[in-house]
Amino acid sequence: MADKQNEKKVTPRSEDFAGWYNDIILRAELADYSPVRGCIVFRPDGFAIWEALRDELDRRIKRTGARNAYFPLFIPQSFLQKEAQHVEGFAPEVAVVTHGGGKELEEPLIVRPTSETIINHMFAQWIHSHRDLPLMLNQWCNVVRWEMRTRLFLRTTEFLWQEGHTAHATRAEAERETLTMLEVYRTFIEEGLAVPLVFGRKSAAERFPGAEETYTVEGLMGDGRALQCGTSHFLGQNFAKAFEIRFLDEQNQMQFAWQTSWGVSTRLLGALVMVHGDDQGLRLPPEVASTQIAIVPIWRKPEERDQVLQAAANVFQALKAADLRVRVDEREGVTPGFKFNDWEMRGVPLRIEIGPRDVAAGEVVAARRDILGPAGKSRLAIGAVAERASALLDEIQRNLLKQARDSMVANTRQFIDYAALRVQMEGEGGGGLADIYWCGKAECETKIREETRATCRAIPLDQKVEVGRCIVCGESANERAYFAKAY
Amino acid sequence: MADKQNEKKVTPRSEDFAGWYNDIILRAELADYSPVRGCIVFRPDGFAIWEALRDELDRRIKRTGARNAYFPLFIPQSFLQKEAQHVEGFAPEVAVVTHGGGKELEEPLIVRPTSETIINHMFAQWIHSHRDLPLMLNQWCNVVRWEMRTRLFLRTTEFLWQEGHTAHATRAEAERETLTMLEVYRTFIEEGLAVPLVFGRKSAAERFPGAEETYTVEGLMGDGRALQCGTSHFLGQNFAKAFEIRFLDEQNQMQFAWQTSWGVSTRLLGALVMVHGDDQGLRLPPEVASTQIAIVPIWRKPEERDQVLQAAANVFQALKAADLRVRVDEREGVTPGFKFNDWEMRGVPLRIEIGPRDVAAGEVVAARRDILGPAGKSRLAIGAVAERASALLDEIQRNLLKQARDSMVANTRQFIDYAALRVQMEGEGGGGLADIYWCGKAECETKIREETRATCRAIPLDQKVEVGRCIVCGESANERAYFAKAY
Repeated sequence: MADKQNEKKVTPRSEDFAGWYNDIILRAELADYSPVRGCIVFRPDGFAIWEALRDELDRRIKRTGARNAYFPLFIPQSFLQKEAQHVEGFAPEVAVVTHGGGKELEEPLIVRPTSETIINHMFAQWIHSHRDLPLMLNQWCNVVRWEMRTRLFLRTTEFLWQEGHTAHATRAEAERETLTMLEVYRTFIEEGLAVPLVFGRKSAAERFPGAEETYTVEGLMGDGRALQCGTSHFLGQNFAKAFEIRFLDEQNQMQFAWQTSWGVSTRLLGALVMVHGDDQGLRLPPEVASTQIAIVPIWRKPEERDQVLQAAANVFQALKAADLRVRVDEREGVTPGFKFNDWEMRGVPLRIEIGPRDVAAGEVVAARRDILGPAGKSRLAIGAVAERASALLDEIQRNLLKQARDSMVANTRQFIDYAALRVQMEGEGGGGLADIYWCGKAECETKIREETRATCRAIPLDQKVEVGRCIVCGESANERAYFAKAY
Repeated sequence: MADKQNEKKVTPRSEDFAGWYNDIILRAELADYSPVRGCIVFRPDGFAIWEALRDELDRRIKRTGARNAYFPLFIPQSFLQKEAQHVEGFAPEVAVVTHGGGKELEEPLIVRPTSETIINHMFAQWIHSHRDLPLMLNQWCNVVRWEMRTRLFLRTTEFLWQEGHTAHATRAEAERETLTMLEVYRTFIEEGLAVPLVFGRKSAAERFPGAEETYTVEGLMGDGRALQCGTSHFLGQNFAKAFEIRFLDEQNQMQFAWQTSWGVSTRLLGALVMVHGDDQGLRLPPEVASTQIAIVPIWRKPEERDQVLQAAANVFQALKAADLRVRVDEREGVTPGFKFNDWEMRGVPLRIEIGPRDVAAGEVVAARRDILGPAGKSRLAIGAVAERASALLDEIQRNLLKQARDSMVANTRQFIDYAALRVQMEGEGGGGLADIYWCGKAECETKIREETRATCRAIPLDQKVEVGRCIVCGESANERAYFAKAY
C-alpha cells in the first residue's frame, strides 16, 4: 500500500492549505473518514499521538488536585433545559436517542455535547458542607455535536476530549481555578505540542453558553487562521442555581457553590498538523510523536545485509533502553529514498541511516525532520547514540516551537486603521492575528466580523495601562484584543 | 459526611449478598446511581481502580503487537444487519439515535453495543494484500446495551470496556491469536486483580453472536455464583464475508481474512468487590488499589501533635519516593477508630498507624487489610518503612489470590449424580462451580439450565483423555464442563 500511496504527491501547502491538510492526515494514516456522517476513525498513528498528549495532560491535571471520574453518555432532555443560555447554545446541535431496547423512550436522551448538566446534578447530591469543597473532577470521554460542516480533527460530529468540572466555596477560589487551568493548558500546549499561543478572555459574544467568563488559548495555524486550542470557563453560580448545588459554609449559612469547567479536545491533533506540517508532510514534536526515531538500514550487496541489520538492531536496543520510541524500517522491495520520504511524510522527528560504511566507521547518520537536507544531518558515534539522539530530540522540540513562534510573530500585526485591517483580512486564506484597540462594544465586534470575517479571539489579561481608540468607532478603548479569522 | 455514612452499618455479606454488594460500592464511593436509567457514575475512587487496571492491561495488550485506535460511537442501522447472528443477538438491546441537529435522520444510528460491524467496514478499506496482515487493533471506549435488569458494574446500560479486533491471513493464526488473548486476560486478572479463574470454550448456546468459537475466563464470586470476566472470540470468516474483507495472498489468490475479537469491561470492578470484599467492606489488591497505604497519625495531647504529624509526613515521603500510592489521613474531629473503619471500608490494603510512642521508638504499626486484628499487625522501623511496606503489599497481593483460590477450590465440586447437582444449585444464592461430564448436546444443557438455573460457564481446554457419562442423559461424554449459576 505504501508504494501506491506515494505515487501521488500531496497537494502543496502553499497552493491549497485545506487540500494539503486532508491529504497529509490521510497519507500519514492519522485518521480516516468513516461511513457515519461527520465522524472520523482515529488510526493507530493518530491515536498514539492522542494517547501521548492525553497521558501528559492527565498528569498535569492531576497535579492540580483534580481526580478523574466518569459520568453517563446520556443526558435527560429536561436537564439541558435547566440553564437558559446553555440550552440555547447546545439544543440545535444535539443527537437524540428516542428508542431503547425496542421501545420508544418516555423522555428522549441527549448524547452529551458537554456534561455540565449531568455532572452538576450529581454535584448536588454530593455537596452539602464546606468540607465537601473544593470538588474537582475531570473526565476523558467522547462527546457529540451535530456539526453541519465537518473537517478532520477540527470539527467532527463525535470527538474526544477531557472536561474538568469544579465547585468551590468562594468566587475568588473558582476564579483562581479557572486561571490555573488556563495556565496548565498554555504550558502544556507550548511545551508538549510546541504550539505557541496567545491567551486571554473571550468577548461576551464568544463565551461558553452558561459561563460568566470564558478564557481561551489560541494558536495561529500555518495559513494565518487562528484555532481555539482550549478553554476554561468561570461559571459563577449559574449552574449551582439551576441544579441547587448548595452547602453550609463555616458560619452555618447556606450558600450556592462557585464553579468552573475547562476542556481540550482532539482538535489539538489538527493544530499539530497545521502549525508544524510542510510540503513533505507532518512534522511531529518529539514529546508527542508515537515514533520519535526511524532507523533505516541501507545495503546493496547481500553480504552487507547482515552486518547492517545487526548494527541497526544494536542501535535500536540502545535507543529503546533509553526509553525512546523507535522503529527499524526493515521493509524489503522499496528503496531507501522511498523510506526517507515515507518517514518524512509521517513526521518522525529523527531518522537514523545506517549503511555498510557507517558500520565500518562505528557511526550512523542522523537526519532531522525540522531541518531538511545536509544542514540537518550529523554523524553520531554508535557508542553514544542514545545520548546524542536524546539531545537532538530535545533540540528538535525547541526548534519546532521556535519556528512556530517566529511564524506567529511574523503574522501578528498591530492595526490602527480599520481599512488596513479589512485589506489584511481579505481573500480566502487567513490574515494572521490582528492586535487592535477595541472599545468592547458588541456593535463594533459585529461590524468587524461581518466585514472582515475576523472574530475576537482573545482579550489579553496583561494589558498595559494605556488608552487608545477603538479601530471601528474611534471611541476611547482601554483594552487591546486579538482578532483573526478562525477555524 | 464521613460521620453520617458510618452511622449505618453495611448489610452483612452473609445475610444479603446483593444488599451488601450495593452498600459497600456506595459507601466506599466507588460508584453512584445516575438519573439516567441503568447508567452509573464512576466516582474517583472507583475510576482510579479502572485506570490502574486499564493501564496495566493496555501494556499487556500492546506487548502482543496490537495498537490502539478509535472508531465512531454510532453505527448505521444497516451495518448491524449484515451478519445474521450478530443482528439477532444485539438488535433487541440497542439504543437508537433518530434525530440529529434538529432533524430526523434518514437512517437511524445505533449507539455501538460492540464494534465488529463498523470496524470491519473499515478493515475492508485497509486490507488488500497479505502484507497488510495481521491487522491488530484495540479500542478503549464506552458501549451501550439496553439492559432490563441492571446492577452496579455488572450489568449497566452504558459500560466501559476494551474491544480488540484482529484480521489474519490464516485460520491457524487467528485461532492462535484468540487463545493468546485468553491467556493475556487470564494472567492479567489473576496477577493484577488476584481473582482466580477457570477458563475454556463456551458452549454453542453461550457463544458471541457471530463467532465460530467463544473462549471465556470465569471467576467465582463470594456468594458462589460465577461471573464471566472476559471473552475472546474466533470469528472465522463470518464478518470477513459480511463486510468483504479480502486480500491477495502470497500466491496472488483472493482470500477472505480470518478474524478475532476480544474484550473485558468495567464489570471487572464488580468481580473485585465480590471476590475480595468482607463484612468490613472492600479489600483491594495492592496492584490496582488507588490508595495502597493510608497513614493514620494518632495523638491526644496538643504537644504530641506536631511530632506525630512530622513523622507521618516523613513516612509519607519515604513511601511516595518508592512509588507507592499513599495518603495521610489528617482529618480532625474524628477518632482514630473511625478512621481505621473508614479505610477498611475503602479496602486500602495497608494501614500505617503512628502515635507518640511509635515516634519515640522510631517505628510505626502496619495493619494488613487481608488479615484483620493483631495477627495482621507488625511493627516497621521508620528507616526501612518503604522496603518493608512494599514487601507487605506483595504479600497481601499473593494472599488475596490465595484466599480467593482456596475459596474457589472449596466451592468447586464434581458431580456424577444429577439429583445431587440439583440440590446443590437450589436456593437463592449461588451453588459454586459444578464440574461435570456433559455429552455436549443442547437438550441436556437446556435441561440443566431450566431445572437448576446453572449454565455452562466453560469447557476446559486441557481435558484429560477420559470418557465419562453425561450427568443428564447418561450417554458417553468425552468432555467435562463447568456449570454454575451466573451473574
